[in-house]
Amino acid sequence: MELQNDLFLRAARGEQTERPPVWLMRQAGRILPQYRALRANLSGFKELVETPELACEVTIQPVDELGVDAAIIFSDILVIPEAMGLTYEMIKGKGPFFPKTIKTAQDVERMITGENAASELQYVYDAVSLTKRELKGRVPLIGFSGAPWTIFSYMIEGQGSKTFSQAKKMLYQHPEVSHLLLQKITTATIAYLKGKIRAGVDLVQIFDSWAGILTRKQYETFALPYITQICDAIDEVPKTVFAKGAYFVMDKVAQLNCDVIGLDWNMDVAQNQKIIGAGKTLQGNLDPCQLYGNPKDIEEETIAMMKRFGGRHICNLGHGVYPDTPLDNVRVFVDTVKAFKY
Amino acid sequence: MELQNDLFLRAARGEQTERPPVWLMRQAGRILPQYRALRANLSGFKELVETPELACEVTIQPVDELGVDAAIIFSDILVIPEAMGLTYEMIKGKGPFFPKTIKTAQDVERMITGENAASELQYVYDAVSLTKRELKGRVPLIGFSGAPWTIFSYMIEGQGSKTFSQAKKMLYQHPEVSHLLLQKITTATIAYLKGKIRAGVDLVQIFDSWAGILTRKQYETFALPYITQICDAIDEVPKTVFAKGAYFVMDKVAQLNCDVIGLDWNMDVAQNQKIIGAGKTLQGNLDPCQLYGNPKDIEEETIAMMKRFGGRHICNLGHGVYPDTPLDNVRVFVDTVKAFKY
Repeated sequence: MELQNDLFLRAARGEQTERPPVWLMRQAGRILPQYRALRANLSGFKELVETPELACEVTIQPVDELGVDAAIIFSDILVIPEAMGLTYEMIKGKGPFFPKTIKTAQDVERMITGENAASELQYVYDAVSLTKRELKGRVPLIGFSGAPWTIFSYMIEGQGSKTFSQAKKMLYQHPEVSHLLLQKITTATIAYLKGKIRAGVDLVQIFDSWAGILTRKQYETFALPYITQICDAIDEVPKTVFAKGAYFVMDKVAQLNCDVIGLDWNMDVAQNQKIIGAGKTLQGNLDPCQLYGNPKDIEEETIAMMKRFGGRHICNLGHGVYPDTPLDNVRVFVDTVKAFKY
Repeated sequence: MELQNDLFLRAARGEQTERPPVWLMRQAGRILPQYRALRANLSGFKELVETPELACEVTIQPVDELGVDAAIIFSDILVIPEAMGLTYEMIKGKGPFFPKTIKTAQDVERMITGENAASELQYVYDAVSLTKRELKGRVPLIGFSGAPWTIFSYMIEGQGSKTFSQAKKMLYQHPEVSHLLLQKITTATIAYLKGKIRAGVDLVQIFDSWAGILTRKQYETFALPYITQICDAIDEVPKTVFAKGAYFVMDKVAQLNCDVIGLDWNMDVAQNQKIIGAGKTLQGNLDPCQLYGNPKDIEEETIAMMKRFGGRHICNLGHGVYPDTPLDNVRVFVDTVKAFKY
């Protein structure tokens, strides 16, 4: 089906657009009353992730409610460790928790990878197909995965962490075992993203949420080679890489075989345009907390941001939208972008 | 009493030294078996902070055990909110927790400040005097405080956070109330640091642990003016500012009226030397997780780091030493520095 609004894809491919497209990371979520109402009747987060009809419904909600220029399939980066053999739970008010974690080389050997892992995730492909059908070509659909280092860190830590010292300890103490696990995650992720692409997503985004915790040397050794593999393996659709906090290694991120690079709210636009060059589109990067402010400030700061980028830009926040953000303020953000002209 | 080892202070003042001095943030803590043994007999963390004889004992332990070039008084940055009227608890495995937090302008008005707050902290001054006496001039003693933004964020959030979205929301929604609270924290902190200086500390360090969560504009508006006040108010001893994660605003941090600037492990040494200039000493910045590695790597990376800095350098990690770091590896780090010659 032909897309009625392909602004997002044109911007991703570097075509000149009349204004930047706009969407928000975590737009399908708690900011929407429709989402909260649907969640109230469910046993939990995973029921939503694993039921294609429900995932489809919440994926489309922000398109209906906010008029964003792209949808992102409702899912979680942690479906990959689960498909590989480590189930997770989502604990209310705390976040993800893995009852079992990776401790030894034997644990890594037991992990499933490639198509064997990816085939566990049929419910995601079904959600993608259904959502593509239900979107009726209104806007493109984004598929996503975690970057191998971020997935690795959850598989070692078993939960979020301030320091990720256990995951980093594994890198320092057992580099070979670490590479083995990172490779298995990568191979599973490639098969998984290809499954999503076959099911219909129009672009894939790789989230390296914990990039900023590594040293430059570690990022070059344990993170970039695996993102490189993923980017090189996928040529069916455009690719976005968002390495949050990786300011210290953006010169190398810039060299990835991808189309779009995400910036967080601390990253300077002009400096990164210089580092990354004109060959890639940039995505970001308003401070998510700016949307707690008053509408006038949101409008001014959003316009100032668009002018800073100037062009080859996809409007977004510098992080996922926070669950307690007032919906009307999100609307101001989206509407300001849609009223803008270069 | 004259100092037998004043290497740390000479380096802080920018004098040429034969090698960099070395100490570790959180060196008085769980890495030491002596500390763990002492803690096992106590009711909790706060008993240790509030009992001068005990705080003195654990402050000196790393000087005895590791031979570091400076001691840092055992305490916590959260004694300031407590002295201002918000008590905290230290919850095992979770960190600090404030039963009451700041929500309104009225809450801020109720907060005590200046000498009235500082006078609540006699136990800290007593710990400093006692420690100075017990150190017998072996090494200098560092006093410290949190930076106003970091203290503010705890007073709003009531605990640690990944996003500090509540504290940032306060900045966006109630800038005047925020400035009022930041000023009260600043005035209390100045009085407190002056009390520590009168009691004998040889240098003060200001920890802005959550600097990296703010935008550049917010850091310039809500953080730097208050650190500036503190630095300008203190001229009795040298001053160190450690704004963790504030890479995006180091050009402004560089202009503070202080002697030493701390770098975290992500901050590039050459780039920051260029930004900060030769007028200040730099402190840092080995990845704390490097000390999980093998002794040979620790030695190599420590030497490489010292060579990167070249001079005008105080050796430290880029963050506090993590509690589960093997003591023998900490020893390798310290001994490598002590065996080094420029």
